Amino acid sequence: MAGRIPATPEPVRPRSASVLSGDYRDAISLLPTGVSVVTAAQPEGPAGCTANAVMSLSLDPPSLLVSLATGSRTLHAVQEAGAFAVNVLAWPDRHLAQRFATVSPQERFHDVPWSLTRGAPVLTGATLSAVCNVNEAVPLLDHTVVAGTVVWLHTEDTEPTVLYRHQQHALHP
Amino acid sequence: MAGRIPATPEPVRPRSASVLSGDYRDAISLLPTGVSVVTAAQPEGPAGCTANAVMSLSLDPPSLLVSLATGSRTLHAVQEAGAFAVNVLAWPDRHLAQRFATVSPQERFHDVPWSLTRGAPVLTGATLSAVCNVNEAVPLLDHTVVAGTVVWLHTEDTEPTVLYRHQQHALHP
Repeated sequence: MAGRIPATPEPVRPRSASVLSGDYRDAISLLPTGVSVVTAAQPEGPAGCTANAVMSLSLDPPSLLVSLATGSRTLHAVQEAGAFAVNVLAWPDRHLAQRFATVSPQERFHDVPWSLTRGAPVLTGATLSAVCNVNEAVPLLDHTVVAGTVVWLHTEDTEPTVLYRHQQHALHP
Repeated sequence: MAGRIPATPEPVRPRSASVLSGDYRDAISLLPTGVSVVTAAQPEGPAGCTANAVMSLSLDPPSLLVSLATGSRTLHAVQEAGAFAVNVLAWPDRHLAQRFATVSPQERFHDVPWSLTRGAPVLTGATLSAVCNVNEAVPLLDHTVVAGTVVWLHTEDTEPTVLYRHQQHALHP
């Protein structure tokens, strides 16, 4: 078949084409992130999910940003309540990351100590808990980015959990 | 003065009051973040700044989010170019975080190897470099959140730099 010329040239990938989802998923796992559980109160009980997409937005007023899947139960609860808590999971509580990502919403808080603080469920023992009032919510692609003003803070002297290469790590194990 | 009644009651701090900036700054330092340099090309040369506020936005299309101070030179360059790169600093390059946060824009790239890739300056040796086309830019408080579609990826087998408690850490020093 040497020298055989195809009838049409190979399609040229347009310059704007994005990379493959699988390649991106592995690559972005090299960006270390803290592991958090974002929670909100609703009349029927607390809602929450694991979120690695949490970042500081501003120091004045103290504000942070969380990204939640549009249509998710937790996002709905956050928007209904107008408040949410970011709970950075301490290393001893790292198993909660899987729980708050996979089990049914009704079972997520089973045997997890929490308290309602400034209108949001705060997980006991989190390295950092920050309760925020919703400032703005912006849909971006399939997620909604929620900016919140921090109205309450609590910290514990425990190491946080870090996600890196799809695995959990402690900074000082 | 016992029993003296003030003419007006003490002001009650409104429920929506935010926490103090200094308290927030220390508390949010407990959320571990990867340390990145966000770069963009401009006619007079590359622009860039250190950014800890980088997060994944979506797997489909592969997209990420960076938060840059509104009015910053790098944000201006990102918006003019329509493209930017996120470079997650490898542990051996951790000193670049201070350089890209503090020295004059003209000196930031001095002796730093980089190449223009898909329209954005990619730092050689970064643990992860992701070139993105700007999808949307949303002002939120004093920052602007830029969503970008990832069009090019490169990874190196080097540990990234993690910021925690205002200090840089390696995951496996």
